[in-house]
Amino acid sequence: MSDAPAAKSPEAVVSIARSARQASRKLALLSNETRTAALLAIADALEKNAERILAANAKDCATAETLVSTGKMTPSLFSRLRMKESGIAEMASRVREVANLPDPLNKRLAATELDQGLILLKESCPLGVIAVVFESRPDVVPQVASLALKSGNAVLLKGGAEAANSNETILAIWKQTLSSFPEVPQDSISLLQSRSDVMELLHLENEVDLLIPRGSKEFVAFMEHHSRVPVLGHGEGICHVFVDRAADLRKAVAVTMDSKVQYPAACNSIETLLVHKDVAAAFLPEIVAQLKSANVQVRGCPRVLALLPDANLLPATEKDWSTEYSDLILSVKIVDTLDQALDHIDKFGSKHTECIVTEDPAAAERFLQEVDAAGVFHNASTRFADGYRYGLGAEVGISNSKLHARGPMGIEGLTTYKYKLRGNGQIVSGYATGARHFQHKPLR
Amino acid sequence: MSDAPAAKSPEAVVSIARSARQASRKLALLSNETRTAALLAIADALEKNAERILAANAKDCATAETLVSTGKMTPSLFSRLRMKESGIAEMASRVREVANLPDPLNKRLAATELDQGLILLKESCPLGVIAVVFESRPDVVPQVASLALKSGNAVLLKGGAEAANSNETILAIWKQTLSSFPEVPQDSISLLQSRSDVMELLHLENEVDLLIPRGSKEFVAFMEHHSRVPVLGHGEGICHVFVDRAADLRKAVAVTMDSKVQYPAACNSIETLLVHKDVAAAFLPEIVAQLKSANVQVRGCPRVLALLPDANLLPATEKDWSTEYSDLILSVKIVDTLDQALDHIDKFGSKHTECIVTEDPAAAERFLQEVDAAGVFHNASTRFADGYRYGLGAEVGISNSKLHARGPMGIEGLTTYKYKLRGNGQIVSGYATGARHFQHKPLR
Repeated sequence: MSDAPAAKSPEAVVSIARSARQASRKLALLSNETRTAALLAIADALEKNAERILAANAKDCATAETLVSTGKMTPSLFSRLRMKESGIAEMASRVREVANLPDPLNKRLAATELDQGLILLKESCPLGVIAVVFESRPDVVPQVASLALKSGNAVLLKGGAEAANSNETILAIWKQTLSSFPEVPQDSISLLQSRSDVMELLHLENEVDLLIPRGSKEFVAFMEHHSRVPVLGHGEGICHVFVDRAADLRKAVAVTMDSKVQYPAACNSIETLLVHKDVAAAFLPEIVAQLKSANVQVRGCPRVLALLPDANLLPATEKDWSTEYSDLILSVKIVDTLDQALDHIDKFGSKHTECIVTEDPAAAERFLQEVDAAGVFHNASTRFADGYRYGLGAEVGISNSKLHARGPMGIEGLTTYKYKLRGNGQIVSGYATGARHFQHKPLR
Repeated sequence: MSDAPAAKSPEAVVSIARSARQASRKLALLSNETRTAALLAIADALEKNAERILAANAKDCATAETLVSTGKMTPSLFSRLRMKESGIAEMASRVREVANLPDPLNKRLAATELDQGLILLKESCPLGVIAVVFESRPDVVPQVASLALKSGNAVLLKGGAEAANSNETILAIWKQTLSSFPEVPQDSISLLQSRSDVMELLHLENEVDLLIPRGSKEFVAFMEHHSRVPVLGHGEGICHVFVDRAADLRKAVAVTMDSKVQYPAACNSIETLLVHKDVAAAFLPEIVAQLKSANVQVRGCPRVLALLPDANLLPATEKDWSTEYSDLILSVKIVDTLDQALDHIDKFGSKHTECIVTEDPAAAERFLQEVDAAGVFHNASTRFADGYRYGLGAEVGISNSKLHARGPMGIEGLTTYKYKLRGNGQIVSGYATGARHFQHKPLR
């Protein structure tokens, strides 16, 4: 990531974060009607200002072109930067989709009458202030910002420096539209400029409630290890398909090919194929031929190599089992039992998504119950592990944490809850002495 | 905390944690019937072995007595160490209560038919391995261990060195009983010996899923800042009662007194009382008199001092507003408006529990909606903020995090969820090309 030299002073970052915290108090009071109406108005404004956005983007692209020509930017990063008119329409339509999601706030999660006239409600509420760090794609700005506003959170955004003009223009349109909604604070959204601004955030645990880094796994790991603010981010995706002895081999071929080839750079693609020894001879020649014709480099364990001496496969080394290729490479291992497959996944899997292909319901249930991963699949491609495919609506990211949000994280991940207790002067002391007793009556 | 010199080697701690991880795989397969039956058997065994436990405890107490007499242990710590025969019965009865809680696992949190024959379930499951660090009370061992087993988690326990004999004896009885339940792994529970053992845990993010420190706030803060393992712990409790202009002053007196005096060392007791200027003259003389007769030292802002010149109050300094006294001290401030009260709480509150006393429903609703705290109370003592009083059953602790679990944390806080996807060979590629479309049909 190449950053413009426009880093803010540490004091400026603190001040932006404090303003966001202040804004979050006003956001917590907004009705769903206001949040929805503001987002629909913003979607319209983005479309009306398409030319302005495209002009700003053209400026970013012009700078980026010289970076590409001098080898300082990859062509794939450049292609994610460039926007089209159809992209603006899609951007607006995504904002509308978020606007029309069911209200994630003030949901009653539990209700108990502790005693007569003493009512405890557990209700969803905004986290407060979230910060999202991402790379060049300017369409992330309205996507994340709309999720934040719908869920009543203030948001600090740090995009790629390459997209600075595009991002600033989108933000200006956003804030301009908010000025027609005086109850929505302008400080509910702010842009940070540089990576050093982000470093300042890591210490602001009183101002920022959640940090979501989207980027390389090294970047995410750095954030996780250095932040006092809680971090939810993508981690590694070392996913497996296990072809059981009772697998339907037609399904096994389809699921394996899709899980590896359909989009190999995705974190939910597989890196290793585990094959039960009883079906290895029937399955491996077919799958290896198909993988090869899809340009997948296959690396085999010694037993795979011995079974397919003429296939010219590379040997898989110990390191292969723990490598996320994110590429057209697949390591293949023969195991003797379901237990061996479970052990391998336990040792090398990254708890992201794991799949068993089998017609044996007992083997499937044991796999789904015992494998410790965000997604445990039976006879389905690992590529289904995705917020949109799961039907969560917009996706904030994929969490590799077991706490708070696990796996594809929808708007619910931007909420927490509070306990609201309503009484008429009740005190604890009578209960402590035993003079009064709690009823703990669940309410609907 | 004085530790026995019996620290394990770093390798031994890693090995204990790895065994716990292995055990967690077996625990994930246990039925609720097995988990419940094992806990009921353990409760019986604790009662049957009461003499053995009391003898071990007497040994700990004998050592502790010399520490007390030489000033190396506080009498209050000593009193929490000593067990009675009735304590064993209560211990067993608490284990039985946890045994009989509803099963926290395999709860269906969501169910969606993504497309024909492709069913996605979101189901609760154990976190895996939890570690709990606490001080001398030996009754914490069965309490935490029963919550862990009921929720299918392996647990690493580090108790106070003062209680080493008591804790080891309880653990021996626990494991002995488990030997009648061969499907429950022995390594599902282990004791760590020293603080340096705990320091080893902080780096074992692949083996331990959650660390729960119970102890001083400095200790918890240290854990939070140095651990790679997620930490949920008690933080500061700087709680407020705000007496609004529309308060019923009889309720205000009762709630204030209970919130301060009923158990001042608790984190849900208040440190500051905020009073609306319109009721200050009517309310303050009465509450200050009552506080004084309960031996509470009152520290007032300049306006409070001016209003009660003859009360001999100490002046509250800026530092008072951010101090957790945990003692019979209360700072009192007059504010002009609800907004000023909200600002004060936003600036100095620790997001634990905040209360408004008012008969004005609009003021109450705004307070409950805008104050960012785990508990927001209307006309009820802050001392109700407690897992038992909330009806959560046993309490793991009180979380000061907004993520995962907020406020009093019951057994649900020891679970996460996984997405189980069951298909018959479905792949993503048809959906990606647009040949197939998701249905996303919610199921019950």
